[in-house]
Amino acid sequence: MASVPIRHAVCSRCSISIAVASSSRIAAISRPSRVTKRYNSTSHGSLPRFQPRLDGLEPHHGPRAKPSHHVGSLSRSQAGKTVILGGWLFAARRASANLHFFTLRDSSGTVQLISRDPVISERLMKFPLESVIQVEGEVLERKEKAKVEDSQLKPADQVEIQLSNVLLLNAAEANLPFYPNRPELANEDLRAQYRYLDLRRTELSDNLKIRSKVMHITRCHLHDKGFTEVETPILLNSSPEGAREFLVPTRVSTSSTSSSPPSPAFYALQQSPQQPKQLLIASGAIPRYYQIARCFRDEDGRKDRQPEFTQIDLEMAFVSGTAPVVDERAAQQSTWNIGGSEVRDVVEGLVKDIWKEIKGIELKTPFNVMPYEVAMDVYGSDKPDTRFEMYTLPIGYFPTLTEDTLDRILLDERLYTVEWMVTPAHLAKHIDPRQLLANNHFVHCIPITESNMMTWPAESPFTNNLELEIDPELINHARGGVQPGDLLWLAQRKKIPEGGWTNLGRFRVELAEYLVGAGHLVLPPEPRFLWITGFPLFTRADEDKAFLSKGRWASTHHPFTAPVYEDLEQLKKGQVEGVRGQHYDLVLNGQEIGGGSVRIHDADLQEHIMKEILQLDEKEVSRFAHLIQALKFGAPPHGGLAIGLDRLVSILCDSKSIRQVIAFPKTAGGSDPVFKSPSSATVDVLKGYGLRPLTEDSEVEKKD
Amino acid sequence: MASVPIRHAVCSRCSISIAVASSSRIAAISRPSRVTKRYNSTSHGSLPRFQPRLDGLEPHHGPRAKPSHHVGSLSRSQAGKTVILGGWLFAARRASANLHFFTLRDSSGTVQLISRDPVISERLMKFPLESVIQVEGEVLERKEKAKVEDSQLKPADQVEIQLSNVLLLNAAEANLPFYPNRPELANEDLRAQYRYLDLRRTELSDNLKIRSKVMHITRCHLHDKGFTEVETPILLNSSPEGAREFLVPTRVSTSSTSSSPPSPAFYALQQSPQQPKQLLIASGAIPRYYQIARCFRDEDGRKDRQPEFTQIDLEMAFVSGTAPVVDERAAQQSTWNIGGSEVRDVVEGLVKDIWKEIKGIELKTPFNVMPYEVAMDVYGSDKPDTRFEMYTLPIGYFPTLTEDTLDRILLDERLYTVEWMVTPAHLAKHIDPRQLLANNHFVHCIPITESNMMTWPAESPFTNNLELEIDPELINHARGGVQPGDLLWLAQRKKIPEGGWTNLGRFRVELAEYLVGAGHLVLPPEPRFLWITGFPLFTRADEDKAFLSKGRWASTHHPFTAPVYEDLEQLKKGQVEGVRGQHYDLVLNGQEIGGGSVRIHDADLQEHIMKEILQLDEKEVSRFAHLIQALKFGAPPHGGLAIGLDRLVSILCDSKSIRQVIAFPKTAGGSDPVFKSPSSATVDVLKGYGLRPLTEDSEVEKKD
Repeated sequence: MASVPIRHAVCSRCSISIAVASSSRIAAISRPSRVTKRYNSTSHGSLPRFQPRLDGLEPHHGPRAKPSHHVGSLSRSQAGKTVILGGWLFAARRASANLHFFTLRDSSGTVQLISRDPVISERLMKFPLESVIQVEGEVLERKEKAKVEDSQLKPADQVEIQLSNVLLLNAAEANLPFYPNRPELANEDLRAQYRYLDLRRTELSDNLKIRSKVMHITRCHLHDKGFTEVETPILLNSSPEGAREFLVPTRVSTSSTSSSPPSPAFYALQQSPQQPKQLLIASGAIPRYYQIARCFRDEDGRKDRQPEFTQIDLEMAFVSGTAPVVDERAAQQSTWNIGGSEVRDVVEGLVKDIWKEIKGIELKTPFNVMPYEVAMDVYGSDKPDTRFEMYTLPIGYFPTLTEDTLDRILLDERLYTVEWMVTPAHLAKHIDPRQLLANNHFVHCIPITESNMMTWPAESPFTNNLELEIDPELINHARGGVQPGDLLWLAQRKKIPEGGWTNLGRFRVELAEYLVGAGHLVLPPEPRFLWITGFPLFTRADEDKAFLSKGRWASTHHPFTAPVYEDLEQLKKGQVEGVRGQHYDLVLNGQEIGGGSVRIHDADLQEHIMKEILQLDEKEVSRFAHLIQALKFGAPPHGGLAIGLDRLVSILCDSKSIRQVIAFPKTAGGSDPVFKSPSSATVDVLKGYGLRPLTEDSEVEKKD
Repeated sequence: MASVPIRHAVCSRCSISIAVASSSRIAAISRPSRVTKRYNSTSHGSLPRFQPRLDGLEPHHGPRAKPSHHVGSLSRSQAGKTVILGGWLFAARRASANLHFFTLRDSSGTVQLISRDPVISERLMKFPLESVIQVEGEVLERKEKAKVEDSQLKPADQVEIQLSNVLLLNAAEANLPFYPNRPELANEDLRAQYRYLDLRRTELSDNLKIRSKVMHITRCHLHDKGFTEVETPILLNSSPEGAREFLVPTRVSTSSTSSSPPSPAFYALQQSPQQPKQLLIASGAIPRYYQIARCFRDEDGRKDRQPEFTQIDLEMAFVSGTAPVVDERAAQQSTWNIGGSEVRDVVEGLVKDIWKEIKGIELKTPFNVMPYEVAMDVYGSDKPDTRFEMYTLPIGYFPTLTEDTLDRILLDERLYTVEWMVTPAHLAKHIDPRQLLANNHFVHCIPITESNMMTWPAESPFTNNLELEIDPELINHARGGVQPGDLLWLAQRKKIPEGGWTNLGRFRVELAEYLVGAGHLVLPPEPRFLWITGFPLFTRADEDKAFLSKGRWASTHHPFTAPVYEDLEQLKKGQVEGVRGQHYDLVLNGQEIGGGSVRIHDADLQEHIMKEILQLDEKEVSRFAHLIQALKFGAPPHGGLAIGLDRLVSILCDSKSIRQVIAFPKTAGGSDPVFKSPSSATVDVLKGYGLRPLTEDSEVEKKD
């Protein structure tokens, strides 16, 4: 390296060799004296003085010792030692003139402080609760069991601290809007407004810690499995699916002439990294991608949804496109009769890790697999809650009705059938059907008695005008359909299952919620994981997509999902109804926590589906141009999945709402009670984006 | 658990007990036969048929074996074994009628394939290069050293694969816009447009893998140190600092009457998690927070900046607010004379980990510390590049001028002084000052000769009208200021350093870049880390903030930075000039890679600074209401730091631009060549947000 010979005095004070060798020498020449001289030589007018508070509760700013322990790390073993703790003054009480008890809380727990020093006691008694203090004292082993001030907290009650010193680091206000760690909770709005106080509540802070753990377990697991974490753009372009996307105006102008007022230009916030991650895998840059990605959807206040949410998102190259030729686990896996088993294996391993480390539960893998059609037939739902029985079955299965009569009782021979469900007597006796069905015009209930055991169809609005062929066989043995005291529920449903629910499927869940709430039904504690596969690839039933499909076929999930190999020829013939997709949903306790699919890697097939089946116009197709192009550059077969982290964690935390596992959630209405968003913008600001309010008179905040 | 007695035939086919025990039984009742029947019973018209391609290059959809190895995992040890590989056809050549050589590439490397089977050879020769194939063959140990087709690639050249089978998984187009892994690079625009092809280039994919590693090392390190990862809102409210923030209009209406057209409401994308993370720490929920956070700034095309970028963001509770009383490392640490040493320790440990695992370099910690004022005096920069010498010094230090004469040569006794820098003869001989200063009117150059060694000040525009008091002492010994052949550079600078550069400091870097580029100066390979502390807490010099401060004082960094303890009294007196902040920047090789500070935890002081010193009006202060409120609820002292991940990784990857370490970067102009953002929106869409284009005639795209 070229070097400058050090020749003059000054450089001996700041030469780099010295600067590197001992920065203290460098420090020497900062000379506060000279600084002061410099500043005094200038003559800016000085500003108002600071008004100190007079209540003797100024926060400590000066030097102080560093805390030696967390409360959680205290135990008998330190008895006799002197420790320094920082935390919140949680409770204070006077036992006698010269004996006071206090409770110190930090995020790891609480510990009792005792003071026999009247000066320290007096000071501490003056501090408002929830003030931040630093205390020094001797660790004493605790004789008597501690009285726990707060049922929510588990104090390190083996020891107490005999105070020798206390510092007020920061006083709390004398009267807080509420006190977070007391049993009685303040009302929700107040807690939402002061979230940064509510977060002090142990239950919430524990949720955040569990969430952090889950993310770390996930990342370690996926790194071990050879995944690469890649950040994809959050600022994307708007897409045809973008019904609920957020637009982001930018000052960057699309008009070439920047002299004229710019025509507004927008990014869109990603709703999921679907396209970027497929491009990434198609590029061949990395064989296995993952990301814990923030996604955005302008849900406009759907129940328990957030405008921003988090996905564990992954994608793998070279996944199998159909059931593998060599299948080591044929026995168990026989129902995973689609491709992407590599994704299944990774996800099951990940979920296993999470449940083991967070819950201490060893999950049995592989998880069960159920075809969509079966789920709809047996549970009337594409996310069956298998923790309780009672099945919703097409009437054709009803043993007292022979196959022949089935067609005759269909309301519409082409489209409709009847589904039925039995609630057995021991549960039925707790149920008042009239009450439960008060607002439900789809489900019909027939209480079963000795007299109508075999004739009930005559009471069914769906089946009453039939003379039934009773099969004596079935009546005579105990396996007959229903028994006195049962409740028989009937509803109409589409013959070919469609969408996520049947009428009875929805009611089945409401009924279970009622029975659980009333304590008549107890759900098993262990989680019930289930894969649902074989969804129809196309649908006409999804309202969310109606605006797009305009009565045409829409993709049940997204247009990149590959068809089931066995249905490929049928699809190519143009008979799309009944074509199943290589899509898989991961269901836990009746909630969908993840979903994914094997993707189409064949550019011609992808274009065929977009143009001929979805009948997207040129402009709509052009939004996918980069993806189709990427497939033409030599893209490997690939597939992936995304798990909803908020939902997953809220289940792990037994939280009712995902808001309890998010640090600063927004309300159902999408507003932020802490940061007060969204808010208005000035006309001037909007002008910068080439925008103006629709109505000039709309209350647009004027800045001074 | 309540259970339903199984009574009828059908349930033996789908009872949950069975469903759970063996899902294969459940699968049985999906009955493809019945499905077909169902669909046949419906009569939707069928759609156009798929037109198969006729060139015999259809992608394989059917069953196939799973790949057994990655190319990177091949070695002599597998010789004789049969392996299955998936990857890209990278090269093909005919050696003789019955001997062909091919190269297979996957993201882990390349391997040679040989075919002696004319059928396989013919097929492979037909496949376009970059097609995705799956091959099966025997591993042969390689006799002769392989000719490496591409200097960029290191093939697993111990072995080659003798082909027994080949599958075309996906054909590439016959002519790609460019071929990523060839030495000659296509032009940048083309590569940007087809980023998903360019990413196939090993150099880029390696960058992504290094980035992923750095993130994982970071997370593991911080988790080990007891940090909790917390996701803070990306959709925040706009803030006074928000000159460059992105607004996000939302359909959520702020007007109570939703009948009238909604008045526009906006979120703002976070520029950094500064406020959320301070609220989090203030809440006491967690003692140590971190997040690898996506941040957003509407930079409007600044060089090598991205509208979205990533920060390693952390914050710690109970950090010391001034040099700790007990300092185990007093010797080295003596110049860290502010608080927050806990943050310093964590960050240095983290950086040490990263350099060790990525570069195999053991960094010496603690890093050096240099006060801002010294950096500005000695290097003319607040991010000194200490890899080369040459110092920019206030003329006062010039030994041939005594302190007394110093004041007389100041251009403006109050504000200005002169800085000077010497380039020694052995470097000077490579420099043409006229050329280097062609567009630089701030720096003046005096070539030193025997004759003007002591009289040069007479040639300086800044000092020429002075009779100088030459100190014979200094002249006579070798430590005199300059020597013949040196180049002496002079420039004017503020007496009290301000902002990030002096004129000479900026020139110093340009000069070094020129010398390095021309090969006359060689920079040392090992990284030079440096902490800069003691920045002025307030400034009038920051243009970025001028719009806010309107000539008033502005915070040099942000209004939450705590003053240096020793300067607190001065600040309270209202003499803010010269008050230093407890801010620290981490500098690497002349680039700022991170910065942070100890925060103000005293609500009164925070309010005093905002109202009395920054003179924010009520409305501006109200934007910080939640933060001030949080401090009043009992907030612990806290401090933190943020590291720019993109910059850090690009330095680790020796990349010129951060775009080379981002999967899908945007152009300098902020547009996305792949996803074609930003783009226009229809009037109807804008209406949904209560917005319309400023100029009706601005080309707003009309949807059909």
